[in-house]
Amino acid sequence: MNKIIEDLNWRYATKKFDSTKKISDEDLETIKESLRLVPSSYGLQPLKFLFIENPSLRQQLREKSFNQSQITDASHLLVICSLTKISEEYMDKHIQNMAQIRSVSIESISGFGNYVKKQILHLKDDYVAEWNAKQAYIALGQLLHTCASLRIDTTPMEGFEKEAYNEILDLEKRGLQVVLVCPMGYRSEEDLNQFLKKVRHSKESLFDVR
Amino acid sequence: MNKIIEDLNWRYATKKFDSTKKISDEDLETIKESLRLVPSSYGLQPLKFLFIENPSLRQQLREKSFNQSQITDASHLLVICSLTKISEEYMDKHIQNMAQIRSVSIESISGFGNYVKKQILHLKDDYVAEWNAKQAYIALGQLLHTCASLRIDTTPMEGFEKEAYNEILDLEKRGLQVVLVCPMGYRSEEDLNQFLKKVRHSKESLFDVR
Repeated sequence: MNKIIEDLNWRYATKKFDSTKKISDEDLETIKESLRLVPSSYGLQPLKFLFIENPSLRQQLREKSFNQSQITDASHLLVICSLTKISEEYMDKHIQNMAQIRSVSIESISGFGNYVKKQILHLKDDYVAEWNAKQAYIALGQLLHTCASLRIDTTPMEGFEKEAYNEILDLEKRGLQVVLVCPMGYRSEEDLNQFLKKVRHSKESLFDVR
Repeated sequence: MNKIIEDLNWRYATKKFDSTKKISDEDLETIKESLRLVPSSYGLQPLKFLFIENPSLRQQLREKSFNQSQITDASHLLVICSLTKISEEYMDKHIQNMAQIRSVSIESISGFGNYVKKQILHLKDDYVAEWNAKQAYIALGQLLHTCASLRIDTTPMEGFEKEAYNEILDLEKRGLQVVLVCPMGYRSEEDLNQFLKKVRHSKESLFDVR
């Protein structure tokens, strides 16, 4: 078995973390850089990644997450948020950033900038909010893979009280909403779920060739 | 720089593929197994992965994808579809599959099965369709990472005519809809995009600690 498949078989949705084990600074930097490199539609990265360290904040969030212990016990708690809108100002900053990174003038990429603006700025806010939220799932997919490669456990979560999270983390006024939550760290030896066989569809039922 | 970050920096949204280079059977098996192992909400895997080999079908799809050459020229064309509904029958099959894989009786996991059914079966079809579609984005995130590790190029695409895809691939009657498209293969030397610096937000603007 090659390392990719070994890594992906190793991971599982961890139910109980060992709260004494911490992710090293080096691995955390790799995780962050991996998240930073996640691709997104038009490269707009309409995301924000919050690491929640404050213990009382983690306790509050746990209460809004069906009291799941991972929220407080994992080494790190990542909350993936997305922008609720994309403004013209945001687009302009993106173009500026592109010009700066690629050492070109803003004028030389204004064709691209105007094209993307034309595609996006007329879209309804609700649509944009949903679209941005989907980009968070790409980040999640890449994150789970990265963490598995590093032998760091994760629990991807969609099931929590989103409105409560938005309020506790004061996201609305920053133009953000919570999309996904992912505790990260090291599995507890007591977590029997790690020994369960992974349940997946067969290749025959999942793939099709035309 | 470690291999993970090297891989993720290597990848880019390929604009032009070398149509003479093919993904090996071995790598294709790794890609499929990676897709099969993608996690999903409640482990339901409400996805179907179509590999489009028929050249005339690929030409038809290209016409519904703003004529982007990657659709016909990449070694492989993957179309990621999601279920438009989740039926009680589907749930029952999932529970059966779980029982079989884990060598336990269906009765012994009926508590879990009934719990998940209670969570899902009352949801509106539109909500379920959107929710399932989001799971496709997790698959995309994991896929891009897997392919980059294998030094296989990809072009993640959201921009194509979804209704036309659904019709051409006759998805509706199978209870599916197209979500994402991903040509995979090897970049052409002529694709100048590979030399452009990657544009990403800075860590400072993307991450926050609370």
